[in-house]
Amino acid sequence: MITLEALGGAARPGTLYGIGVGPGDPRHITLRAAGLVMSVAVIAYFARRGMRGKARAVADPLIGPGREEIRLEYPVTEEIPSSDPAYKAQISAFYAAAADRLAGLLREGHSVGLLAEGDPFFYGSCMHMWRRLASDFSVEIVPGVTGMSGCWTRAGAPITWGDDILSVLTGTLPEQLLVQRLGQTDAAVIMKVGRHLPKVRRAVQLAGLLERAVYVEHGTMPDERIIPLAACAAERGPYFSMVLIPGQGRAL
Amino acid sequence: MITLEALGGAARPGTLYGIGVGPGDPRHITLRAAGLVMSVAVIAYFARRGMRGKARAVADPLIGPGREEIRLEYPVTEEIPSSDPAYKAQISAFYAAAADRLAGLLREGHSVGLLAEGDPFFYGSCMHMWRRLASDFSVEIVPGVTGMSGCWTRAGAPITWGDDILSVLTGTLPEQLLVQRLGQTDAAVIMKVGRHLPKVRRAVQLAGLLERAVYVEHGTMPDERIIPLAACAAERGPYFSMVLIPGQGRAL
Repeated sequence: MITLEALGGAARPGTLYGIGVGPGDPRHITLRAAGLVMSVAVIAYFARRGMRGKARAVADPLIGPGREEIRLEYPVTEEIPSSDPAYKAQISAFYAAAADRLAGLLREGHSVGLLAEGDPFFYGSCMHMWRRLASDFSVEIVPGVTGMSGCWTRAGAPITWGDDILSVLTGTLPEQLLVQRLGQTDAAVIMKVGRHLPKVRRAVQLAGLLERAVYVEHGTMPDERIIPLAACAAERGPYFSMVLIPGQGRAL
Repeated sequence: MITLEALGGAARPGTLYGIGVGPGDPRHITLRAAGLVMSVAVIAYFARRGMRGKARAVADPLIGPGREEIRLEYPVTEEIPSSDPAYKAQISAFYAAAADRLAGLLREGHSVGLLAEGDPFFYGSCMHMWRRLASDFSVEIVPGVTGMSGCWTRAGAPITWGDDILSVLTGTLPEQLLVQRLGQTDAAVIMKVGRHLPKVRRAVQLAGLLERAVYVEHGTMPDERIIPLAACAAERGPYFSMVLIPGQGRAL
């Protein structure tokens, strides 16, 4: 029998692992990520205030009882616009303190696994730790299946064919910019829809793409919801919601 | 001990699995993909003429001896431009014949695992089988880590921060279109560079992005090569080469 331990490998002391745990279904965790989650001395994860922490929830089947864990709780998330200097100041101080905490553990020789939703280097909070720690410590980033891959797979919507251009946008962008960029692409993914859902829906409609657009909440998870964007009348979605506009490039 | 079989699950008879095997390093295969590769009755994969087949090579550590395998060999790849009607006719006939072959196995009740590099629904040949077979047979697509995630991870280049827009382009696009799109994005990935390398390099330079651009060949694989695009004077790259232009969005 081929074992997970043999395939995924184990953690080395004094090393920080930024571990992508994929889109939500634990079966989409990679062998390397699984091997590390099971073997690091300390499990660390970011979480919004009062919430469980999505990456922690995804990796749960691989984290046995009695493990040392560090919860890094954001002081703010969507309460203040990210353009506000108050947001930047609070988040920046939070990331600096989190990095100090992880640095302390690494100096003591512990291996630390920092869990990340999706892929760590794709809009990941993990990147802020990597930026602060990679020059002083041994750091390995473990790529993961992105949230968008999980969503387009579950939606039965191949996203790009042949030479299709894919644009990845965020719901936080101004409406006019969204309309403009949607008009210049073959396929699109709009991430971070959340409370920007009405604006995103207007932008997709103005770009003439409403009929092709699919709305996905919690893709690959038990509470997954996939509907045409045109049928989605909600005023806001959860943070992990996105809109997909599949490409139509050459079908051979 | 948690076993791979328990986590990844096993194949059901008469089902086609489009299995993303990730960017190259077998450790980036997901638990679900691993469970299916080990349990399907028949392993199928696309390969270029005379080549080993990349997805097959990636999954090799999970494929024991004596397995039934089907090699689906492309009649053409880069010899004819994809816009040529001769290319379309040959590829279209090839995909139709490949789908017929898989359909025959499924009708006999076999489970078939069609291996795909990266993520199956992201520029995957697998999509052409899905399009032909999903309405008549039980089909499951298994998302994988994309080639680009593997490349930006290995390049130590977080690709998108905060509200960064990411554009995924292909080296097959006209130079002027590449220059234009590169000028309108925060971050970019140019896939399918191959023989288009000189054009891609010119386009990146004309867009004023040469200093930020990274060239990656065979990311995550033993023959991986990562250099600044400005230092890459080659006239062509291998098919699995790409150019990354990391975003510079808010670093908090």
